[in-house]
Amino acid sequence: MAKKGASISGFPEWLPQERAIEQQVIDTLREVFELHGFLGIETAAVEMGSSLLKKGETSKEIYLLSRLREFGQDDETPVEEHLGLHFDLTVPLSRYVVENSGAVTFPFKRWQIQKVWRGERPQEGRYREFTQADIDIVGNGSLPEHYEVDAPLVMVEALERLRPFGLPKATVHANNRKLSEGFYRGVGVTDIESVLREVDKLDKISAAEVAQLLQDEAGCSPEQAAACLELAEVTATDSSHLRAAFDQLCEKHGIDKESEAYPLAQQGVETLAMIIDEAARIRPGSVMADLRIARGLDYYTGSVYETFLDGAEKLGSICSGGRYDNLVSQGSRKYPGVGLSIGVTRLISYILHTVQATTSRISPAAVMVAVWNEDERQTSDHIAAQLRQRGIACDVAPTAAKIGKQIKYADHLGIPYVWFPPQAGDPAAEVKPTGHQVKNIISGDQVDADPASWTPAPEYARRAVVVK
Amino acid sequence: MAKKGASISGFPEWLPQERAIEQQVIDTLREVFELHGFLGIETAAVEMGSSLLKKGETSKEIYLLSRLREFGQDDETPVEEHLGLHFDLTVPLSRYVVENSGAVTFPFKRWQIQKVWRGERPQEGRYREFTQADIDIVGNGSLPEHYEVDAPLVMVEALERLRPFGLPKATVHANNRKLSEGFYRGVGVTDIESVLREVDKLDKISAAEVAQLLQDEAGCSPEQAAACLELAEVTATDSSHLRAAFDQLCEKHGIDKESEAYPLAQQGVETLAMIIDEAARIRPGSVMADLRIARGLDYYTGSVYETFLDGAEKLGSICSGGRYDNLVSQGSRKYPGVGLSIGVTRLISYILHTVQATTSRISPAAVMVAVWNEDERQTSDHIAAQLRQRGIACDVAPTAAKIGKQIKYADHLGIPYVWFPPQAGDPAAEVKPTGHQVKNIISGDQVDADPASWTPAPEYARRAVVVK
Repeated sequence: MAKKGASISGFPEWLPQERAIEQQVIDTLREVFELHGFLGIETAAVEMGSSLLKKGETSKEIYLLSRLREFGQDDETPVEEHLGLHFDLTVPLSRYVVENSGAVTFPFKRWQIQKVWRGERPQEGRYREFTQADIDIVGNGSLPEHYEVDAPLVMVEALERLRPFGLPKATVHANNRKLSEGFYRGVGVTDIESVLREVDKLDKISAAEVAQLLQDEAGCSPEQAAACLELAEVTATDSSHLRAAFDQLCEKHGIDKESEAYPLAQQGVETLAMIIDEAARIRPGSVMADLRIARGLDYYTGSVYETFLDGAEKLGSICSGGRYDNLVSQGSRKYPGVGLSIGVTRLISYILHTVQATTSRISPAAVMVAVWNEDERQTSDHIAAQLRQRGIACDVAPTAAKIGKQIKYADHLGIPYVWFPPQAGDPAAEVKPTGHQVKNIISGDQVDADPASWTPAPEYARRAVVVK
Repeated sequence: MAKKGASISGFPEWLPQERAIEQQVIDTLREVFELHGFLGIETAAVEMGSSLLKKGETSKEIYLLSRLREFGQDDETPVEEHLGLHFDLTVPLSRYVVENSGAVTFPFKRWQIQKVWRGERPQEGRYREFTQADIDIVGNGSLPEHYEVDAPLVMVEALERLRPFGLPKATVHANNRKLSEGFYRGVGVTDIESVLREVDKLDKISAAEVAQLLQDEAGCSPEQAAACLELAEVTATDSSHLRAAFDQLCEKHGIDKESEAYPLAQQGVETLAMIIDEAARIRPGSVMADLRIARGLDYYTGSVYETFLDGAEKLGSICSGGRYDNLVSQGSRKYPGVGLSIGVTRLISYILHTVQATTSRISPAAVMVAVWNEDERQTSDHIAAQLRQRGIACDVAPTAAKIGKQIKYADHLGIPYVWFPPQAGDPAAEVKPTGHQVKNIISGDQVDADPASWTPAPEYARRAVVVK
């Protein structure tokens, strides 16, 4: 990572060789999203405070903006009328869809890769700026259920395409809010949101601690807390197992199939069953039911997803999302959506620091053209132009320094080939070839070459990621 | 553009079909920069207030950030200790170079395409968020002069590559700060910065008005003002013409070749002469000397550039920059640089609204696979997967609606091909083919096709920009 300390805490910056890896990750994600017919958009970095604080949650970690000239004089303006930096790409999408509902085709499939910001207190290991890569499918009035399995499978495919960067296999853990809510109501819990919030802590604290919090914070009885935790222990990779486990728990905790809560839970069970069966058929082992998944955000109404990397569960979920039926509306018209978001910066950090992936070269250039002396620079420039015309990225030596120093420049940047232009008319201190020559400074091979037709060996043609 | 009015003033957002064009412009720029061996980086969106306000210029249009939880309570903290959004990519580069001077190879050639922000009052036609595409070459201690012609020529090549987007020919107008300053001092002017600032207004107000401002604001005599304006009238496309015109003006205004000011001016003349001659040799008609070019920013110390599009001069400069010898330093170590910045958002706006370029299709997908009924969706999904595996972007019909409605979805998104899966076992209301068929809904051609080998016609393979 770019030199620590001097930078601004929480705003990660990468060295060029690290950025080269991030760029390839982003290119790969984009390619997969576009292969699946998602449309790319960008939204403004800012939203109105009123959008960012839909429910007046001033506990949120948001950066508000002030114009320098008004700084300190704009405190009277309500926060809702200030601009703030977006903290995710879902709130901006919802605004974008409403604003452009007459102009886009539904279901609107969009991808978006952008920075988001969290106005947190600076603290070790917390990002205040990071990149997210999102896909969402938003319907007009309704949204077919198949998108609830399509969306996570696109992300699985994208993460699969990142395996050459050293990422372990990813598994999507899916749950359904209706399933959870129906079950909670069935055992008599009323404060659903609080229960979800506490259950969401299971990956950070012990089950016993969560049980206590469920009683202290969410008004559960010890029995209710135990039931909620038993539900959270259920995992399944096929629908029959899921249905059996769920029904067994309902029976154990006395949830009547004739009760109001049961059909709601059942809806969730059936959607989740469809998802894991379909996913197992298309990409076995990619998606499992995991009833522990709660998700912190309150706008989800159905499916919720988190994604973990095998052996890197400590990293937390690297791709999360869900279905939201009520986030976006315009009058009585609703725009239900489903989507997932990859935490790109967290992934890059894993790839750089845990995998310790490197780039095959720092420079995008495959060739550095040497310069015999400054009067002959135009010869070198011309060779470079010829190579570039054929799509071969080239640099030209910065100065007509001793040839060893020029080669060192190429070497520092990992440029594999050095091109030697032919000898010009006047004699020089150094021995020059009489025709064009190109040297692979990694293998040491040096051959005659024609700038109109030479091409680099395939393994040196493009910058690539190297994983040991 | 995305629906007006509802969006936040000054923060442009594009519809997906417009964003598709912006994305292609950005891809093209990046490709050219990488062909020339520039390394891509990204820097944080924020800088310390102290960096943004190097000279305490609180007149600057900057957005400062406050954490929501501290909003209204952080006014006591000096502006210098606040975070602010960067207003260009040069100030971040200078910090990045100093922080990472031990880790990067010099001369450091970097490209950077990012959003920047200006905390302006909202007003019609002014962007408060826009994208810049920058290249810079930064030396360690020194920087060879050839980069002062290399850098603008890379930008000319990049802009040339954008001609298929409907951009007219671009011409770089170059000047040199030393030339201007030497001349101004030669005629007895002392407040150089003020003169530059007023001369910079020549593209907005008349010469007579600038002459008045030079007297009122920059302390010039009428004769000095006249001399400054005569200098600003000089243009040249070759060095002999430039030298002759400059010497004639020096003679006319009594600038002694033995004076202290003349050698400074002469340095500038010679650098500029080199630039226009070299550029004329490599790319005739691409760069001209234009002594009116002043540039608003005070960190330039040598060459300065602005770039205009033929017949679109009203648009202003779309690519500007210069050489800065003192922007970046670390103790006594200096990092002189030269670079230019393309105003991407302004260009996109021109391409969309003046050229009225469109994208050949809204969706990246070349094919939409139809779905006969929901029970057969997996057949369609499988065909899409086969096509994607061979790099053909595909969408699948959102619902098994009547086939006409499915085709309409493809048509709205500009997807050229609709794929019809073969008839399944059970009879259906609609007539289905017995084998795979694919229809080009633009030409109407429908043919038998094999998902393992079919490819779209080349003109339909990729989304492209269409200029009438």
